[in-house]
Amino acid sequence: MTPPVRLPAFNEEVARRYLEGAIPTSGLPEYLGIRVVLVEPGRLQARMPVDPKLITRIGNMHGGVLAALCDHVLGSVCYPHMEQGWWAATVEFKLNLLAPVSSGTVTAEASIIAMTRSTAVVRIEVTNDGRPCCAAQGTVLIRPPRLGG
Amino acid sequence: MTPPVRLPAFNEEVARRYLEGAIPTSGLPEYLGIRVVLVEPGRLQARMPVDPKLITRIGNMHGGVLAALCDHVLGSVCYPHMEQGWWAATVEFKLNLLAPVSSGTVTAEASIIAMTRSTAVVRIEVTNDGRPCCAAQGTVLIRPPRLGG
Amino acid sequence: MTPPVRLPAFNEEVARRYLEGAIPTSGLPEYLGIRVVLVEPGRLQARMPVDPKLITRIGNMHGGVLAALCDHVLGSVCYPHMEQGWWAATVEFKLNLLAPVSSGTVTAEASIIAMTRSTAVVRIEVTNDGRPCCAAQGTVLIRPPRLGG
Amino acid sequence: MTPPVRLPAFNEEVARRYLEGAIPTSGLPEYLGIRVVLVEPGRLQARMPVDPKLITRIGNMHGGVLAALCDHVLGSVCYPHMEQGWWAATVEFKLNLLAPVSSGTVTAEASIIAMTRSTAVVRIEVTNDGRPCCAAQGTVLIRPPRLGG
Repeated sequence: MTPPVRLPAFNEEVARRYLEGAIPTSGLPEYLGIRVVLVEPGRLQARMPVDPKLITRIGNMHGGVLAALCDHVLGSVCYPHMEQGWWAATVEFKLNLLAPVSSGTVTAEASIIAMTRSTAVVRIEVTNDGRPCCAAQGTVLIRPPRLGG
Repeated sequence: MTPPVRLPAFNEEVARRYLEGAIPTSGLPEYLGIRVVLVEPGRLQARMPVDPKLITRIGNMHGGVLAALCDHVLGSVCYPHMEQGWWAATVEFKLNLLAPVSSGTVTAEASIIAMTRSTAVVRIEVTNDGRPCCAAQGTVLIRPPRLGG
Repeated sequence: MTPPVRLPAFNEEVARRYLEGAIPTSGLPEYLGIRVVLVEPGRLQARMPVDPKLITRIGNMHGGVLAALCDHVLGSVCYPHMEQGWWAATVEFKLNLLAPVSSGTVTAEASIIAMTRSTAVVRIEVTNDGRPCCAAQGTVLIRPPRLGG
Repeated sequence: MTPPVRLPAFNEEVARRYLEGAIPTSGLPEYLGIRVVLVEPGRLQARMPVDPKLITRIGNMHGGVLAALCDHVLGSVCYPHMEQGWWAATVEFKLNLLAPVSSGTVTAEASIIAMTRSTAVVRIEVTNDGRPCCAAQGTVLIRPPRLGG
């Protein structure tokens, strides 16, 4: 099983820009502290600390955090395989939460399982200090640059 | 179609507590500015402003924000139908993003479509100033109070 | 909530053809006995008997039957809104099974919640003699006629 | 990534019974010609021929067939890890169709990614003569024997 997936060409420079400039300075990724730590053809890893501010009064991290993390890597893994200027829009995804998270670090690994010039299907595994805590699967639409954008 | 769904008893006091004490003071809901604006048997509405800080450089709101909003209402709609002290844990959900969001307000409406004492299935519609932008569907597990919790 | 959805023009003739010629004479729809019983703009209902041959030794209908029924209506509801000769391909869907089914009739109602010329998002509710038994949500890709096809 | 998953004990006898007695003699699995060809701890493979009767007039296999195949392996992979007499009920799953299928054989491989005594989360990859054509992910509920059943 798991035959190799044919992907559009991998742009090393885009991958490095993501890897090295990976400290988000705004928005939800900054709030959550998400950092992309590994980019390879068809594969990307991102990591974030389980900050106490994200723990609900039940004692677990808000499920929405893992959903946001999944959405983030879903699009990001596609960029090195896309033409420059194009953008990746999540159109749908599904996730299963496998175990509660309350401390440590979460690591999301996204793998492209099918990709054309206009669409990609991606699977994501999230672990919490090595223990699986979330599995997701979704679709990205790849769109041309916006005029004047 | 859409026959009435049988739900466990609705606790008016819990519903009011959610409605009235609805300014979150911590965590992701506070960061996103989510407010529960309506609670009825089997139905809950929450609203949040599309803050400029949530807009990515592509010009749209980060998809993770809608995912987090969906996760939030998925559990919240169940509480008035649960015994006090019990808690609702999202176990899985799926969402489709229907249109980009770049300004205004988003409103999520969650409806319970099936519920027992231990589990609930919920559907969510999200609109952006009246226009549908997201549809989700997921499962909540209802758990007993934690000892010493 | 539930604002009206803007759809491409509805082709009454295609709708009637589906309604009236609705006894499938081959394949999975024939095996399952699926009949389209109602077609309106953005909405389609199909029905099938819970044939004893579909009951597993546990006493319930095989879950795959409801999945197949959902897939069937997911594409079918789009045809009256598509240009003739084009075809609808399911690209993804998710379903929740809400209650076991063991006798009677199941009715699936599909509703388009967003549609362009190239894609549609559809929600499905399935009832078993009036009782909800399944809820699904999925995406259809609308494709041009095949050359020589 | 992909740390080992802790599973309840594997019952070799149940696994062999599935492997060896694997020619279904009734219902949807018989109609589709599904055969379980491999059972290991946490993993199961099933295969079916792409019978011409399953091809729609567009020239591809009905998507509902892959949905039914996924549902079938989703539950089956759990049985060797369950106490005898208990049964596995699919509660939800999601699938992405990656490529059209029109001939040859399809092989579904199910892998348990999380399991307790009462629930399991399973991922499925389906290939058509070695080429990925479908990816699914879902949840199974594990239920006690029915009285008098």
